[in-house]
Amino acid sequence: MVLYLMVLADPNTQQELHGAFLYHMKSMLLSQGFGTEWFWKMWKNGNPAFVEFMKKNYPPDFTYADFAPMFTAEFFEPEKWASIFKASGAKYVVLTTKHHEGFTNWPSKVSFNWNSMDVGPERDLVGDFTAAVRNKTDLRVGFYHSLCEWFNPLILEDIKNNLTTQYFVKSKTMPELYELVNTYKPDIIWSDGDFMGNQYYYNSTQFVAWLYNDSPVKDEVVTNDRWGKSVHCKHGGFLTCKDKYNPGVLQKKKWENAMTIDKNSWGYRRNLRLNQLLSIEELIKTLVETVSCGGNILINVGPTKEGTIIPIFEERLRQLGSWLKVNGDAIYASKPWSYQNDTFTPGVWYTSKEVGTSKTVYAILLSWPEDNILTLGAPITTPKTTVTMLGYKPPLKWAAKTSAGIMITIPNISINKMPCLWAWVLKFENLIN
Amino acid sequence: MVLYLMVLADPNTQQELHGAFLYHMKSMLLSQGFGTEWFWKMWKNGNPAFVEFMKKNYPPDFTYADFAPMFTAEFFEPEKWASIFKASGAKYVVLTTKHHEGFTNWPSKVSFNWNSMDVGPERDLVGDFTAAVRNKTDLRVGFYHSLCEWFNPLILEDIKNNLTTQYFVKSKTMPELYELVNTYKPDIIWSDGDFMGNQYYYNSTQFVAWLYNDSPVKDEVVTNDRWGKSVHCKHGGFLTCKDKYNPGVLQKKKWENAMTIDKNSWGYRRNLRLNQLLSIEELIKTLVETVSCGGNILINVGPTKEGTIIPIFEERLRQLGSWLKVNGDAIYASKPWSYQNDTFTPGVWYTSKEVGTSKTVYAILLSWPEDNILTLGAPITTPKTTVTMLGYKPPLKWAAKTSAGIMITIPNISINKMPCLWAWVLKFENLIN
Amino acid sequence: MVLYLMVLADPNTQQELHGAFLYHMKSMLLSQGFGTEWFWKMWKNGNPAFVEFMKKNYPPDFTYADFAPMFTAEFFEPEKWASIFKASGAKYVVLTTKHHEGFTNWPSKVSFNWNSMDVGPERDLVGDFTAAVRNKTDLRVGFYHSLCEWFNPLILEDIKNNLTTQYFVKSKTMPELYELVNTYKPDIIWSDGDFMGNQYYYNSTQFVAWLYNDSPVKDEVVTNDRWGKSVHCKHGGFLTCKDKYNPGVLQKKKWENAMTIDKNSWGYRRNLRLNQLLSIEELIKTLVETVSCGGNILINVGPTKEGTIIPIFEERLRQLGSWLKVNGDAIYASKPWSYQNDTFTPGVWYTSKEVGTSKTVYAILLSWPEDNILTLGAPITTPKTTVTMLGYKPPLKWAAKTSAGIMITIPNISINKMPCLWAWVLKFENLIN
Amino acid sequence: MVLYLMVLADPNTQQELHGAFLYHMKSMLLSQGFGTEWFWKMWKNGNPAFVEFMKKNYPPDFTYADFAPMFTAEFFEPEKWASIFKASGAKYVVLTTKHHEGFTNWPSKVSFNWNSMDVGPERDLVGDFTAAVRNKTDLRVGFYHSLCEWFNPLILEDIKNNLTTQYFVKSKTMPELYELVNTYKPDIIWSDGDFMGNQYYYNSTQFVAWLYNDSPVKDEVVTNDRWGKSVHCKHGGFLTCKDKYNPGVLQKKKWENAMTIDKNSWGYRRNLRLNQLLSIEELIKTLVETVSCGGNILINVGPTKEGTIIPIFEERLRQLGSWLKVNGDAIYASKPWSYQNDTFTPGVWYTSKEVGTSKTVYAILLSWPEDNILTLGAPITTPKTTVTMLGYKPPLKWAAKTSAGIMITIPNISINKMPCLWAWVLKFENLIN
Repeated sequence: MVLYLMVLADPNTQQELHGAFLYHMKSMLLSQGFGTEWFWKMWKNGNPAFVEFMKKNYPPDFTYADFAPMFTAEFFEPEKWASIFKASGAKYVVLTTKHHEGFTNWPSKVSFNWNSMDVGPERDLVGDFTAAVRNKTDLRVGFYHSLCEWFNPLILEDIKNNLTTQYFVKSKTMPELYELVNTYKPDIIWSDGDFMGNQYYYNSTQFVAWLYNDSPVKDEVVTNDRWGKSVHCKHGGFLTCKDKYNPGVLQKKKWENAMTIDKNSWGYRRNLRLNQLLSIEELIKTLVETVSCGGNILINVGPTKEGTIIPIFEERLRQLGSWLKVNGDAIYASKPWSYQNDTFTPGVWYTSKEVGTSKTVYAILLSWPEDNILTLGAPITTPKTTVTMLGYKPPLKWAAKTSAGIMITIPNISINKMPCLWAWVLKFENLIN
Repeated sequence: MVLYLMVLADPNTQQELHGAFLYHMKSMLLSQGFGTEWFWKMWKNGNPAFVEFMKKNYPPDFTYADFAPMFTAEFFEPEKWASIFKASGAKYVVLTTKHHEGFTNWPSKVSFNWNSMDVGPERDLVGDFTAAVRNKTDLRVGFYHSLCEWFNPLILEDIKNNLTTQYFVKSKTMPELYELVNTYKPDIIWSDGDFMGNQYYYNSTQFVAWLYNDSPVKDEVVTNDRWGKSVHCKHGGFLTCKDKYNPGVLQKKKWENAMTIDKNSWGYRRNLRLNQLLSIEELIKTLVETVSCGGNILINVGPTKEGTIIPIFEERLRQLGSWLKVNGDAIYASKPWSYQNDTFTPGVWYTSKEVGTSKTVYAILLSWPEDNILTLGAPITTPKTTVTMLGYKPPLKWAAKTSAGIMITIPNISINKMPCLWAWVLKFENLIN
Repeated sequence: MVLYLMVLADPNTQQELHGAFLYHMKSMLLSQGFGTEWFWKMWKNGNPAFVEFMKKNYPPDFTYADFAPMFTAEFFEPEKWASIFKASGAKYVVLTTKHHEGFTNWPSKVSFNWNSMDVGPERDLVGDFTAAVRNKTDLRVGFYHSLCEWFNPLILEDIKNNLTTQYFVKSKTMPELYELVNTYKPDIIWSDGDFMGNQYYYNSTQFVAWLYNDSPVKDEVVTNDRWGKSVHCKHGGFLTCKDKYNPGVLQKKKWENAMTIDKNSWGYRRNLRLNQLLSIEELIKTLVETVSCGGNILINVGPTKEGTIIPIFEERLRQLGSWLKVNGDAIYASKPWSYQNDTFTPGVWYTSKEVGTSKTVYAILLSWPEDNILTLGAPITTPKTTVTMLGYKPPLKWAAKTSAGIMITIPNISINKMPCLWAWVLKFENLIN
Repeated sequence: MVLYLMVLADPNTQQELHGAFLYHMKSMLLSQGFGTEWFWKMWKNGNPAFVEFMKKNYPPDFTYADFAPMFTAEFFEPEKWASIFKASGAKYVVLTTKHHEGFTNWPSKVSFNWNSMDVGPERDLVGDFTAAVRNKTDLRVGFYHSLCEWFNPLILEDIKNNLTTQYFVKSKTMPELYELVNTYKPDIIWSDGDFMGNQYYYNSTQFVAWLYNDSPVKDEVVTNDRWGKSVHCKHGGFLTCKDKYNPGVLQKKKWENAMTIDKNSWGYRRNLRLNQLLSIEELIKTLVETVSCGGNILINVGPTKEGTIIPIFEERLRQLGSWLKVNGDAIYASKPWSYQNDTFTPGVWYTSKEVGTSKTVYAILLSWPEDNILTLGAPITTPKTTVTMLGYKPPLKWAAKTSAGIMITIPNISINKMPCLWAWVLKFENLIN
């Protein structure tokens, strides 16, 4: 499975796909756009870089909430965002509706004057985003939502009470979730922030039960696993475990690798430099590894406080889309194969597909074979075996290795005939395994 | 009774005094300091002056909450405030802890990022104020608190539900009141904002019961009447009825005239002009009328967003204090007399005091008698009757009028011997009535 | 002579009057409105209070010019100003067109982006002010202008060159003066800031020559003495010498006491407190002393950055006006008398007037005489001598003292008959001297 | 010749190289970062997009100078800039010291409070930039400077006077140029803005004479041609003619193509989108065309108001550098060849070099030859002719065409052996021509 998609044997799963992750819309709030989306927490924890940044650039009594009016979103055109996501090859897009700072990107009834309508953009960002994506594309819309808030005094009070009280849960975080589902009817709820309390505190079991059984999206919705300590990485429509989770081996349950193009931050940083970003090769490598091991991928790009996606992020997303256009067959609706990566040549990852009784196996090469000869250990050939390269017509020549395996002659394709760059997919049919 | 004091026959009353009203600390939030403290409401209601002001001076998508960081209070020195209040002759001072905009001037647990610690001043204004007044003076500290909020979505939701729900009451306004009382132990709760719901909606009966029976201030606290439609102007420690309530005749219950030196606004206005202010003569007239009819007075001065009380307000308060230093006997701990104002000469108001069996009557002259002869209809003299002027030693000559009443010869006091300006008090002893 | 007027024997003087001084319109620029109008200089000189203020309230790299956009003047209504000046009894009003910071309050051609049209108010403050005063009143309009600028790099360069160069003079300060005169045709040029250079450096002699001989205002204009070190306090239409100059004895030349109601600052301070202001008694005392010694007075009130004159300043000006309405005869067009203050009773100051051969002498009493008997040493009476009090009809009784002098019985005027408060004027006719 | 280099036969030229153009540091001032670096002009000219933008996002009386404090440059690290320029392969870097708005990026003596030290960054950007580039790299430093200013009232005055006066020239623009040269000793002066006056008005002939004969950089400096109407595109160290000048045919004089990666703007735009940027292929194409016709190239990237170069610009510059590392021989110190582009196959551009008597010819292929056979019309071969591809060892096979020309067999280089992408260089030795 994959970016933007999972093939799922599991009949209990309602949906099979999701995708490109707009994780940190919230971080648009951070006028400073500095450090990470954990800016507020780092600063208040006394992290020297953040403390110093504030000292150098703001008056001593400047507060985090004082930044809010600088979150203007004056260039936010969600239709343009939608077209970028579509072009990236994503099937799903997930927006951060609220991060740990507690600021809601929609006019929530329970976040008075701490939401994007009452302060800053004067706009329902969640609503405008959802409408634009649905009007302009066939992508599904998911919502990131943080259960916890770092500094909401009500959760701090609950914590002081050893979570025997639920002031915060009842008046803030749960009402938000119900509001989101009832108002915008999302296809995914991507929960986060369960590190400050368990599922009993958050009443999350109850919410998920409602979500699947009674909510207006009960027939379609999927959700993840970050609902409390004993659920996290154990139960859920798919498991996200920790951030940038990429185990490298096959997992028993559906899972997802939530990662970000900026290697150091999920939120946009105004002083971002090129070497802090994944190259397109690294991005594709991450995607391929994830899919081969049965995972889905969520790729984060943090938008700016002005409401834009910066050109370098757009470029990465469009590059990815151009690669998927050629090689999507190996990714979308694929399943893990018997092997995840090759037993002989490193840097080759497998996926597979079954259509009726016939099975197709895809080997994804992260680098072009030295001297144009590729030896693979995993595939067991038959005389009827065929090998092709996605995007390249002529069948490839191959020979069975003496022991198990196959030797393939990769043609010397000149650069102007190349189906794609960065990684190449071989398609096997009529293998034994 | 009055400003700064009530004489109370009523044994159920716990306290007898209160006073100088710092009504609109909240309005410091209004960086625009324009129009009135109802700025937000007027603007949103489409009042042309306010709409025009915003159009001329702010970007189109500027919100009310965007003003919050401009509320800086960098010159807020509550000790200096305290010394002004003390000098004014007040016995009580009442601070606005929250107005209808919902912004709390203390770090309330239920007003996350919409309070003076999280945004703007980064300071507990209520706490600092209370401590300063108590450390520097013997004044009592009261809190103005608005039950309602114009735009809190939870109250709007409750209203949509015909007040059959109490989302707002339970998660915002009532928790605030308990927090205020438990944290700061105020001497008065001056409730307001009951125009958007009744006492059943607000659970205010329950709160007042707790306040008088179980709260940490149960033995001392007094409160007013603005707790709901059928309480308002009917029940309460004292009745405030409408703003600037000044009936001119004796009232059966203890009451209060809450008024403001700026004739047009309670909140500070940056473009305030002199002719919009009460003169010291007008202020004393209002005080005298109120006291004579059994009322207490609350005199509002709206502070600036920088945290200052402007010099003209300071001047009025100090002028008042200098007058009360001479004439306070007629005001503090006084009671209404049989007559409130004289039956013969207009502009003369009465108060009285009983010490043991003897009774003193005070006649307060709002203007100096023409030709130095004052004729009064109300006092019935005896041979033992004496008349003096407060601040002036020699007894005054008088003669009984043929019918009821008295003629008094006011001495020709030269300006450098004058005990006070603006109004003068005659003290009668041994009258019949 | 005086506030608002001088009687001048000197035929070289073109005008005889001037008056209420709006010194620090420039200080409206100071968004901080803190300390004094020398804020910038104090801060840069390392004065601890100013350094600390900046540290506490602004980011470390905040510059003085960064304040400019906060100078908004959104409430500047020069017609309202004009009505206050008129009511104050002033005959002239002087506006600060540029202070030592170099910011011009009109769109000067030589102060690009450092003037009130290009940054901040987006308005020609000098032009609007001048038009309003002339349309609404009969007051004359004068301009304060600073020759020097603390931090203009061109003057610093000239200073480094021992004033042998005139980069600053030729490209900035002199073009400004010509621009002001040619554009707005002022009645006074009130020059200041000659402490950073002499008249040779500034070419000021040349400018004054043009002003009196060739300028469009040559027949009317007057100017002061602050044009360079060897002119200062020696030559000029009137001498201003140092700020708050009040010698207390008769001066040989026409002079002026330029003073300010805020005892500590000429520029508006946002944290101004009442006890830092002159009381009305102190203000009248200063006026009277100044006039008696042959001086004119300039009374400064510093406007706010919003463009307003705060109510306490308005009050002082209107109080002064009400006093002058009664007592103006002793002030306007008066001349010093043989004595400036009395030889016997302190606190009594004299002025005089001659009409034809008859002479009137005014004695101004700063306090009401103890026991209503006033003994004066200076007046030499004749049998025809009459004494009256301005604003009070009946003539006063008097007797010649044994030696020189006069004893006057001041009537016991009751407060409601008093012509005025704060100071009183006796008018003598037919004295010997 | 080219980006980053010119071989110059012309003995009158003092320097032969220059390069990467940081055109619009000035535009960092534009907090709005909207439209183009002509923002101010467009807005004031009433261009609807700009007028609308201001209306939507700023108060009505907001001025251009009000933006200045928002130009903060808090992330300006010129050493990081220097490393990017170095990596791009540039030999020269040109910074905008002042654009048409008149704001100087250094503390000029003639731009009081309208420069980067007095307002905004509080920093000498020109000085810090120059020092960093010189300390960290061997790049030469050039300065862009605009002669004119759109709105400086002095130039408007001169224009009104039909340029018979020179107020602006004498007090602003010429002093700036002398200051720049004397203070920072630049290697290039890149003059602009001569559209509002000719060389007689600007005294530019005089300045250039001083620059070459008497200035501290007289032995090294070069300058361009934008010094006045009859100089422009006619005389100068190199001709820049109009922006993005790219004639496509050989020019008689040294010239330069000053162009920008953002197709629509030189100044940074906050709402920049990917499709508005040149791709790396387009950028290399422009470079190659320019060099083949004897031009140098200046590549602009507009920095942000925070002082950063955004990642997409950094990527383009580093991509270019990686290409030049392989193919620089064909570019640096090259000269135009007899042919600029091929007579037979389009998209092939030539450069050449002479070492002693031997001459090398470079053919730059903008696309990979279809079917790996390349036919060129221009080169006339000899038996000793050799053909190689830069970055690829083995010599290429070729055959003389029947008529003039050559047919070359391009080897089928597999992608992992490719010397570079985007364009390829063939090197010819021992040709007849």
